[in-house]
Amino acid sequence: MKSIKVGLLGAGTVGAGTFNILKRNQEEISRRAGHKIEIVMVADLDLARAKELVGSAECEVVNDGNLVVNHPDIEIVVELIGGYGIAKDLVLKAIANGKHVVTANKALLAVHGDEIFKAAQDKGVMVAYEAAVAGGIPIIKALREGLTANRIEWIAGIINGTTNFILSEMRDKGLDFDTVLKEAQRLGYAEADPTFDIEGVDAAHKATLMASIAFGIPVQFDKAHIEGITKLEAIDIRYAEQLGYRIKLLGIAKRTPQGIELRVHPTLIPAKRLIANVEGAMNAVVVQGDAVGATLYYGKGAGAEPTGSAVIADLVDIARLADADPAHRVPHLAFQPNAMSALPILPISEVTTSYYLRLHVSDKLGVLANVTSILAESTISVDAMLQKEPELGESQTDIIILTHQTQEKNVEAAISKIEALPTVHGKVTKIRLEHLS
Amino acid sequence: MKSIKVGLLGAGTVGAGTFNILKRNQEEISRRAGHKIEIVMVADLDLARAKELVGSAECEVVNDGNLVVNHPDIEIVVELIGGYGIAKDLVLKAIANGKHVVTANKALLAVHGDEIFKAAQDKGVMVAYEAAVAGGIPIIKALREGLTANRIEWIAGIINGTTNFILSEMRDKGLDFDTVLKEAQRLGYAEADPTFDIEGVDAAHKATLMASIAFGIPVQFDKAHIEGITKLEAIDIRYAEQLGYRIKLLGIAKRTPQGIELRVHPTLIPAKRLIANVEGAMNAVVVQGDAVGATLYYGKGAGAEPTGSAVIADLVDIARLADADPAHRVPHLAFQPNAMSALPILPISEVTTSYYLRLHVSDKLGVLANVTSILAESTISVDAMLQKEPELGESQTDIIILTHQTQEKNVEAAISKIEALPTVHGKVTKIRLEHLS
Repeated sequence: MKSIKVGLLGAGTVGAGTFNILKRNQEEISRRAGHKIEIVMVADLDLARAKELVGSAECEVVNDGNLVVNHPDIEIVVELIGGYGIAKDLVLKAIANGKHVVTANKALLAVHGDEIFKAAQDKGVMVAYEAAVAGGIPIIKALREGLTANRIEWIAGIINGTTNFILSEMRDKGLDFDTVLKEAQRLGYAEADPTFDIEGVDAAHKATLMASIAFGIPVQFDKAHIEGITKLEAIDIRYAEQLGYRIKLLGIAKRTPQGIELRVHPTLIPAKRLIANVEGAMNAVVVQGDAVGATLYYGKGAGAEPTGSAVIADLVDIARLADADPAHRVPHLAFQPNAMSALPILPISEVTTSYYLRLHVSDKLGVLANVTSILAESTISVDAMLQKEPELGESQTDIIILTHQTQEKNVEAAISKIEALPTVHGKVTKIRLEHLS
Repeated sequence: MKSIKVGLLGAGTVGAGTFNILKRNQEEISRRAGHKIEIVMVADLDLARAKELVGSAECEVVNDGNLVVNHPDIEIVVELIGGYGIAKDLVLKAIANGKHVVTANKALLAVHGDEIFKAAQDKGVMVAYEAAVAGGIPIIKALREGLTANRIEWIAGIINGTTNFILSEMRDKGLDFDTVLKEAQRLGYAEADPTFDIEGVDAAHKATLMASIAFGIPVQFDKAHIEGITKLEAIDIRYAEQLGYRIKLLGIAKRTPQGIELRVHPTLIPAKRLIANVEGAMNAVVVQGDAVGATLYYGKGAGAEPTGSAVIADLVDIARLADADPAHRVPHLAFQPNAMSALPILPISEVTTSYYLRLHVSDKLGVLANVTSILAESTISVDAMLQKEPELGESQTDIIILTHQTQEKNVEAAISKIEALPTVHGKVTKIRLEHLS
């Protein structure tokens, strides 16, 4: 049985997961792959960490990633460093040296993917990235290979476990964002600096990659519209619940005749949808194809072994095709490089969706009439409305409006007019709503 | 762009779905595949049906499948005839002629898979069967390729839409099996002769295939334990609900140190599990891997275009690898043919699971003590119990017992003793229960 030699860049959480699974399931994996997949070198700046991981295994430990990417026997380099700096440098060097690359680095690919895939294409090597989106769920494989018959219409995913954990807790316990974030940090579900997660950046990296392979467009992270969950209030989660909806941070990629919508934001979805019931740190992605209809993929989106599982699936794929003609391989972005689409990413003002609006108003006759006439003027039709009784002793109350589908710019214009009404107090809260049907 | 010529055996529902998707999405599919995939011949005994399907397209129509499998230009034969007879004959002829095969025929593969895969292996051609399990859901790809890092522990799937539709309706409307079956037939969710579906045979075909690729064992449909839903009573669905469970027809394949459990039967599952909320004719499969944990795959398990979607995904895979070295391809049953496992399929008496038991008893002192002491003697521990008040004027009532995990033979022995009690009337209803955690 041929042995495929692998070099590992980064001995952190996912590096350890990958290393340990390969050790534990060596025989099972070889029985599938027909090759022995062997990590022969691990590089980490923290040499002690790498040494501890490797233990007594026959595997070199170094603190310079260049030794991995320049190693003559290594056929596949696994990049688990993260970020745009040294990771990019080493990935490009590995490619230049004719090595295949497996990476979990969504940030790198969402921003520099075109450059990296082009380099790999020119050199005739593979860059695999199943671990970059939704951890252990084989969603890249499903999109690139399982659904090739379909014209993909849209994708909507819970693709960040931290924010889904926070939203689940906010709903379950009726707590505010800040309180739950602290709890999530204590439990290890959120990092010390959680910005990338809670501001939606991580989800946008993943949505960017999914949009590319669904629609055959170049990666365009800079055009994604990104809103996190930091401004979400517990009261809106409660109102949504009363109206039969849950609020989830969704990564959405949708094809329209005008272009592609690519956006990450808190979203109301009907509580009866399967994906609305994905709780805690779990991930799920719904893909709507014209032939297959909706399919859903669910599992752990992060963690050492779930992500390591995806890394190794890529290693097995590459082991199989390492010495095959490049034409026998799946294109990096699902579509042949000469058959990509030039469909533009739409600005958020051009996006079409439904909306949840919360207005804080004086409890006076005529307020509702004023609001609804503004909506009518903006050709926004109302799907449902909820007016709360004022609290005892209060003269103000909340009105919740769910709209039918309309363009974002219409809603923005209407909100400006509504906020100018003397009977409407403060800002209007706007959350997008998707029926996912 | 190279054109790959395909011959279609069968112009029924799935044949039509496949043909129509390929026509509609020709460009999108070619942009992915890098090849044009072209159906050049359709065979159906009902020539008129085939002609109607093909319409004005450039494609030969014949009533003899031999013309397809012997056609010199055809590289891939798609078998959508079904059954064991002519389908088997034509598949083997196609293989003998060096053609790759795509089939949706779960019955054929679950029974004759080893013979067919062996023939394909010897001839160096591929037999692909994504459409044979769970329709449009790419579950074969997930198992064979997406989860290769994992030692699969178990699989549990709702893999028959007809029975899931019937069970959903029985629960929703509180109706009996016979009533709902008639409705399902009227709506087209059940066939005129629904035996294969409602007796669990179809689900067992699919579970057999999934067990093989999960554990690397030969296909052994004859060893599967199969129970359908025909004996399921509405009252048990109601009691299950009260205890926090749903009843689903599951196909289960589980690895144990003693061997593989392979079984299809109605199963109580906790209502809070995502798969418990899969309603109507939808399919879903949960796969538990040691590294990735649980992943779930959901979508339409039948129908023209969902199944056609899976057929075409296989066509694209084959188009890519048609002229590759066989070593570059994924093994038919996920594991290399020389690395299959000899783990036996366990008889149902050796299966370990939890149980729901319903006893109809006299409402007398001591009945419960008698029953629980029999369970204790059989080392069956009780997880939950529900004793109903007798209906007004009745002297008999129901006791529901949920057990902890135990071997089937223990439960069978205990049931015999319980049924012999003078205070227990009629048969004990036994339904297996899985926590899926």
